Amino acid sequence: MDRIVEVISKMLASNKFSAIKEMLSEMNVVDIASLIEEFETEEQQVRLFRLLPKQSSADVFSYLDNEIRTNIVNAITNKELSFLMEDMFLDDAVDFLEEVPANVVTRVLAQTDSNTRNLINKFLQYPENSAGSIMTIEMVSFPETYTVKQAIEQIRATALDKETIYTCYCTDGKRKLVGTVPLRRLIVSPEDTVVKDIMYDDNQLIFVNTLDDQEEIADIAKKYDLLSVPVVDKECRLVGIITIDDIVDVIEDENTEDFEKMASLLPSEDEYLKTSVFSMFRNRIVWLLILMVCGTFTSLIIEGFEAKLPFIIGLTAAIPMLMGTGGNCGNQTSTLVIRGLALGDIEIKDYFKVLWKEIRVAVLCGIILAVANYGRMWITKILTGSEIENNTFIIVSLAMAVAVIVAKAIGCSLPILAKLMHLDPALMAGPMITTIVDVITLLIYFAIATVFVQYGLVTA
Amino acid sequence: MDRIVEVISKMLASNKFSAIKEMLSEMNVVDIASLIEEFETEEQQVRLFRLLPKQSSADVFSYLDNEIRTNIVNAITNKELSFLMEDMFLDDAVDFLEEVPANVVTRVLAQTDSNTRNLINKFLQYPENSAGSIMTIEMVSFPETYTVKQAIEQIRATALDKETIYTCYCTDGKRKLVGTVPLRRLIVSPEDTVVKDIMYDDNQLIFVNTLDDQEEIADIAKKYDLLSVPVVDKECRLVGIITIDDIVDVIEDENTEDFEKMASLLPSEDEYLKTSVFSMFRNRIVWLLILMVCGTFTSLIIEGFEAKLPFIIGLTAAIPMLMGTGGNCGNQTSTLVIRGLALGDIEIKDYFKVLWKEIRVAVLCGIILAVANYGRMWITKILTGSEIENNTFIIVSLAMAVAVIVAKAIGCSLPILAKLMHLDPALMAGPMITTIVDVITLLIYFAIATVFVQYGLVTA
Repeated sequence: MDRIVEVISKMLASNKFSAIKEMLSEMNVVDIASLIEEFETEEQQVRLFRLLPKQSSADVFSYLDNEIRTNIVNAITNKELSFLMEDMFLDDAVDFLEEVPANVVTRVLAQTDSNTRNLINKFLQYPENSAGSIMTIEMVSFPETYTVKQAIEQIRATALDKETIYTCYCTDGKRKLVGTVPLRRLIVSPEDTVVKDIMYDDNQLIFVNTLDDQEEIADIAKKYDLLSVPVVDKECRLVGIITIDDIVDVIEDENTEDFEKMASLLPSEDEYLKTSVFSMFRNRIVWLLILMVCGTFTSLIIEGFEAKLPFIIGLTAAIPMLMGTGGNCGNQTSTLVIRGLALGDIEIKDYFKVLWKEIRVAVLCGIILAVANYGRMWITKILTGSEIENNTFIIVSLAMAVAVIVAKAIGCSLPILAKLMHLDPALMAGPMITTIVDVITLLIYFAIATVFVQYGLVTA
Repeated sequence: MDRIVEVISKMLASNKFSAIKEMLSEMNVVDIASLIEEFETEEQQVRLFRLLPKQSSADVFSYLDNEIRTNIVNAITNKELSFLMEDMFLDDAVDFLEEVPANVVTRVLAQTDSNTRNLINKFLQYPENSAGSIMTIEMVSFPETYTVKQAIEQIRATALDKETIYTCYCTDGKRKLVGTVPLRRLIVSPEDTVVKDIMYDDNQLIFVNTLDDQEEIADIAKKYDLLSVPVVDKECRLVGIITIDDIVDVIEDENTEDFEKMASLLPSEDEYLKTSVFSMFRNRIVWLLILMVCGTFTSLIIEGFEAKLPFIIGLTAAIPMLMGTGGNCGNQTSTLVIRGLALGDIEIKDYFKVLWKEIRVAVLCGIILAVANYGRMWITKILTGSEIENNTFIIVSLAMAVAVIVAKAIGCSLPILAKLMHLDPALMAGPMITTIVDVITLLIYFAIATVFVQYGLVTA
């Protein structure tokens, strides 16, 4: 790609516009958008964009990032802007306007006809991440009383302005959504069939509400393998559709949000390289501070036992390894449970099944880890010639086995508890679990050590 | 849903089959599959399945899970089985056969005609997760020399057997893929247009190879917003397509794999509740053992310094909190970088940009955390009346600031290094980073403490 950027830069500099136009007309709109983003100066980017054939400029525009889009809007004439807005699908236009400075929004809206302007204003009012905010109005819909012939004629006449024509929506006299019919069905049916007789209706009709959350919509589309999901208002009137390409974006956004929450980050919608240092700092520091303050508990426990318990060689040295293992065990379990809840494989009612499974896995892991730890400490002792007593190995191994079981029990319980309380289970991931498991592990560890000292099993 | 299960159980018991059939014919195939899975006995499940109308049984079958599918195959007659296999899309049949016991595969293959049998055998040989293993052959393709009229006639005649008809594939005399044409374009074009003149070809033609990895295919489909991706063999001949519903599944599988790797689990393709305790144990114990053995380093460091450094009140007590904070910082960074690499927002060449950004974020986080930690320790001292010296707070805060910066630098470097070495960056997540950061944090901590002791800044 780098060579092509170089060549086009030179062509731009020597005004070889028609040759550039020829090149661009051979390329896919997505690739043109990536190409424009690779140019260094704003001027080059805008000039290249203006060389695009009119029919693909709106498409390319919708794949560009917001910074470049804002630059383009600032550089083009009102007439060009008005053409661009008319040619964009409504959902792309709304997407763009949600992210740019207010003065750009004002200028853009001034260049659209009043009808579109009203629609855009309405769409901008839907809550973030609701069906209304990501839907588009460019769908095919017709009365259920149409014949197949009438339906296909309407599709032919309007197909170019629709975001998808592959699922068509059927309405009754009051614009209520009453059925869907795939283009596939229309095409194979005799011309005089009435649409009502071949459409999917009643239990087979799947739709969402304007205020439904995008995550639910993605789940529905995945479950039923839909190419588009119809959106209705409170009166069940068809107001828009959400297409599979936007649903795929929602799926990826929701996954990213889960990854972020699980790493104790505040979720951010921006790409890594486009997020400012300050907002990165803000997204991270909140949880870091909370978790650090929670660390006070572990410090207090250690201080308390240091005061009470006589010094045992090797006891404190094992703390990081012990807590690390507990944290890793809890992390494994909480990740599996959080993911299972997100994908619908696990539900709240499965809690006891999950807990019972985790306890069995934990017992297996705990035994193996305890035995391996004993061996590890014994080998280390031989290699380093340290004076740690063998009974100290037993304290560490016992504490480890118990910690593993506790960690796995907590790791599966907290995400399900969060779900039960209508919180996001992803918040109950690694760092949160680790902090709780740390405290419990330490208490178990010192309790076992105290018993060993009381019975004279280790030299204090 | 529970009441419907109860009602149908009773209806099954009293042989009210035609009423059940009526009910099922009103339901969506996906919902029927979930319904069947809710019945308790194998017998009920199989009986319900056999009551399905013939035209939807293959569809419902492809949404059932493997255990029930195997039971059904074992219970139905050869004739029913043969009908079922004929009616299933090839990719669904292959999916099913990949997961069931060998004796079931043998019986199923015996009931298919030799043509399908050969195809299935060929598909079963493609490597797991390759394009070949997830593609289907039920696509619409015709010679580029067809007119629009001929093309639409062919679609009408064969649409019912095709997995999608919305993107059609054009081939030359040698069955090579030379272009694609959306049904939308065919429908709006005059009947006598030659397909060659309206198809997307050359740079606009996007396809994958049978051996390409499914992750790449998902990336391509996402990037270009495709409803289906054509698959070609080494000679560029069209051999199949992959449809968007399967691509959505691939996206979710790949995300799950990343979640699992990032929590130091071996990836598993099974649902949580359907994975046996033993395979869960196996998937978890490997990394737990490796990370535990790595814990030897932290133990050795602490033992080493315990021997050299005089006892300072409060110093060891702060270790868990200090290491926790370092781990959390590294975890945040590595998660963002791993996700950025997976989504293509970050590339290897961006390494220095990423590092520079992380260092700035880390300095901000480090300063705030160090100051907050000083305050936290000071307040704790007042509340508990402990004898920790104020200079010990400075040791901990200084070590924390340095640890944060080191953790963030490592957290962004390791995933990019993994990518450079063609390893999966997701392996360089939380637990791995934490283990490395732990060691470095401890070394920094004790080094600072040693300096403070040397200069008499704390009472030893």
